[in-house]
Amino acid sequence: MSDTSAAETSQGETPELFDKIVNLCKRRGFVFPSAEIYGGFRSTYDYGPVGVLMLRNVKNAWWRSMVQMRTDVVGLDAAILSPPAVWEASGHLSSFTDPLVDCRNCGNRFRQDKLDDPDVCPSCGATGQFTEPRQFNLMFKTHAGPVADEGAVAYLRPETAQGMFTQFANVLNTSRKKPPFGIAQVGKSFRNEITPQNFVFRTREFEQMEMEYFVPPDEAEKWYRYWCDERFQWYVDHGIPAEKLRLRAHDADELSHYSSGTSDVEFLFPWGWDELEGIANRGDYDLSAHATHSGEKLDYFDQATGERYTPHVVEPAAGATRTMMAFLMAAYDEEEVRGETRTVLRLHHRIAPFQIAVLPLSKKDTLVPPAQDVLARLQPHFMCDYDETQAIGRRYRRQDELGTPYCVTIDFESLEDGAVTVRERDTMEQDRIAIPDLLAYFRERLV
Amino acid sequence: MSDTSAAETSQGETPELFDKIVNLCKRRGFVFPSAEIYGGFRSTYDYGPVGVLMLRNVKNAWWRSMVQMRTDVVGLDAAILSPPAVWEASGHLSSFTDPLVDCRNCGNRFRQDKLDDPDVCPSCGATGQFTEPRQFNLMFKTHAGPVADEGAVAYLRPETAQGMFTQFANVLNTSRKKPPFGIAQVGKSFRNEITPQNFVFRTREFEQMEMEYFVPPDEAEKWYRYWCDERFQWYVDHGIPAEKLRLRAHDADELSHYSSGTSDVEFLFPWGWDELEGIANRGDYDLSAHATHSGEKLDYFDQATGERYTPHVVEPAAGATRTMMAFLMAAYDEEEVRGETRTVLRLHHRIAPFQIAVLPLSKKDTLVPPAQDVLARLQPHFMCDYDETQAIGRRYRRQDELGTPYCVTIDFESLEDGAVTVRERDTMEQDRIAIPDLLAYFRERLV
Repeated sequence: MSDTSAAETSQGETPELFDKIVNLCKRRGFVFPSAEIYGGFRSTYDYGPVGVLMLRNVKNAWWRSMVQMRTDVVGLDAAILSPPAVWEASGHLSSFTDPLVDCRNCGNRFRQDKLDDPDVCPSCGATGQFTEPRQFNLMFKTHAGPVADEGAVAYLRPETAQGMFTQFANVLNTSRKKPPFGIAQVGKSFRNEITPQNFVFRTREFEQMEMEYFVPPDEAEKWYRYWCDERFQWYVDHGIPAEKLRLRAHDADELSHYSSGTSDVEFLFPWGWDELEGIANRGDYDLSAHATHSGEKLDYFDQATGERYTPHVVEPAAGATRTMMAFLMAAYDEEEVRGETRTVLRLHHRIAPFQIAVLPLSKKDTLVPPAQDVLARLQPHFMCDYDETQAIGRRYRRQDELGTPYCVTIDFESLEDGAVTVRERDTMEQDRIAIPDLLAYFRERLV
Repeated sequence: MSDTSAAETSQGETPELFDKIVNLCKRRGFVFPSAEIYGGFRSTYDYGPVGVLMLRNVKNAWWRSMVQMRTDVVGLDAAILSPPAVWEASGHLSSFTDPLVDCRNCGNRFRQDKLDDPDVCPSCGATGQFTEPRQFNLMFKTHAGPVADEGAVAYLRPETAQGMFTQFANVLNTSRKKPPFGIAQVGKSFRNEITPQNFVFRTREFEQMEMEYFVPPDEAEKWYRYWCDERFQWYVDHGIPAEKLRLRAHDADELSHYSSGTSDVEFLFPWGWDELEGIANRGDYDLSAHATHSGEKLDYFDQATGERYTPHVVEPAAGATRTMMAFLMAAYDEEEVRGETRTVLRLHHRIAPFQIAVLPLSKKDTLVPPAQDVLARLQPHFMCDYDETQAIGRRYRRQDELGTPYCVTIDFESLEDGAVTVRERDTMEQDRIAIPDLLAYFRERLV
């Protein structure tokens, strides 16, 4: 994933939205600062009880679209720890760097390319005190094995992509796929960013959803267009309004030397347009580099044409946590209902932490057993919340804030008619549904 | 997760099974050595196209049982990078160590407690040449931030559990749970093992499935028994025969000083009984340690009784990758069918990489469209393989080796009767099912 930050501050949502989301995330258990009882740790975050459900749903929705629903893409789950050889071949060891300068006056360190004024220290105000820039590699380094020598050096992968390239031949040999086909992976990556920022948007530890699509060279441009459209549409299909999204083609000076085209899917964040995903036409750069460095053959022999070629690669690479943040921001809404402000997350049912909340009208003994029965019918198929505390109105408001699409209320009438009230989140309309019909009712609406 | 290796070599499956599984894993795309084109890297592994599906299923089956199907357990997804303060409080910084000795003759390094003969170097045979043992910490160390000084030290978590303890108060405040309740997490952990071994059984990078169950102190013993039974049954429910499992209570000298009881769920591996999961009665050790070190209150005030107490913890902690390996070994079978050996993985349908394979009898144009139609009906609901190459018998054998519970074959009769043949993996019995009934047919069988 390229990581350009093309923030334009004037057009975005109000900055208040940012604060509201951060607050909601903490208050409702989406996201907590990591190790908060020890003062937090360097912009790392933990995903709480509802956050982990939503993040899982984001990743599963991606996996569903990219792997489950296709016959031309297979999955992979590669190791995070990886040897220098991989990153030498990929170019990360030499080029995955930021230029850093130290202020000789106060000793603080900065990214030179992010300084507002290249001469003045933003920390102490000293002028002309910066050292010459030094290239700082963004990969986390550690050692594997009992002796911390050169042979034990390991890097935490800064992207999941290289796993798909180094395993290209193994996947080809075991999966019976042939170009055009893809290898997809969801997993954590690590970049030692100098300035993590904007909550979970840019963090040192983050989660990627990447796919490498291997194609005959003369089809690369076609598939690049295809994946730009496909990936843009994925965000729309999962509930982000098209007007809050744009596909921005990189200018020539933004492109990597090996890329003949890269486009970013950008979302209108409170701080302006910023990247959710990059789709890059990478040519044969990656496979060729690994073939050269490893001495292995990383190409494809087409038995139909008798031709041997190195496939070109089209890479849609998205960030899971920033996508979750975009879903939250696009879904956040406040509306007046009977003189009160209702906060509601209008999340797609596949993204919302819970799909259904089961709510006995009261904690009375008579209502709990039928509520447990309803729960037992739905729980094997959907992620359900169960809540029997507080007045029903407050419980509805709580589920609205969590984005739960449907609330099922078991009331005293249920004991007579064997039916329950189903309340839809966005319209707040209510349906009366017989308990035996519930599963079919939700299966239709929550695919 | 405790990590004792109580291998007893005489009772296990034959060692040949081990080789067969490793071979099958490579040949069919379950597991590849990581960075294999560069000679591999220090016992790290990548999960290939079918392996990633199976590993996801193992983790999802655990999550389903432990979070989705319960109202007393919530999830968490904490960061891997974590500050020294956490590991100081947990005791890992001082005590998570192995005793290492160097041979003065050949320079090789060994775990003292694993030497067959404490005097003779297993590498060069020299006697009495070992150095005094040195405590080697198993945590991976790195630095976060632009300056690699002490304040930037980060450890890769050696277990997911501490995230549940440090976030205890945040979860309690946002989730409306009260003891007894649990916090569950699935995620990667890292231990710099001196001797990784037995394929994916013990690796430096591995995946855990851990749950911390917080209970009133006087209920700890009861819940410890409950979770021992519950977790043993989980493996049985997912297809491991009970006679290949045992629950082994730790002897007094194996117990941590804070634990009043620990039992391991062990599986009969080819090298003997070895641990899949540990269930520990940890008392209030963890919450108290973090409360002391952080100065935060990590306790519970029971409004009903007016009592404030530090909950005790019962921890079932399992390894995802070794569990996957146990599932593979328990499921592996060879049988004679019409004079040929059929290899079949008798995996539980929730664990198998694919639930259904859709197979047009031939690649003829007439059969592909109805096969694609069948696929389109099933793909949104199940992980399906689609295969139109080779003779149907060979395709059945391939699916048997992948453990796919059902094959759906579209043949020339399908064009007339609108029905397909469904073949069950274990019995090889065939049913004729009308295409519109397929979804309901599988929904009943693949819950």
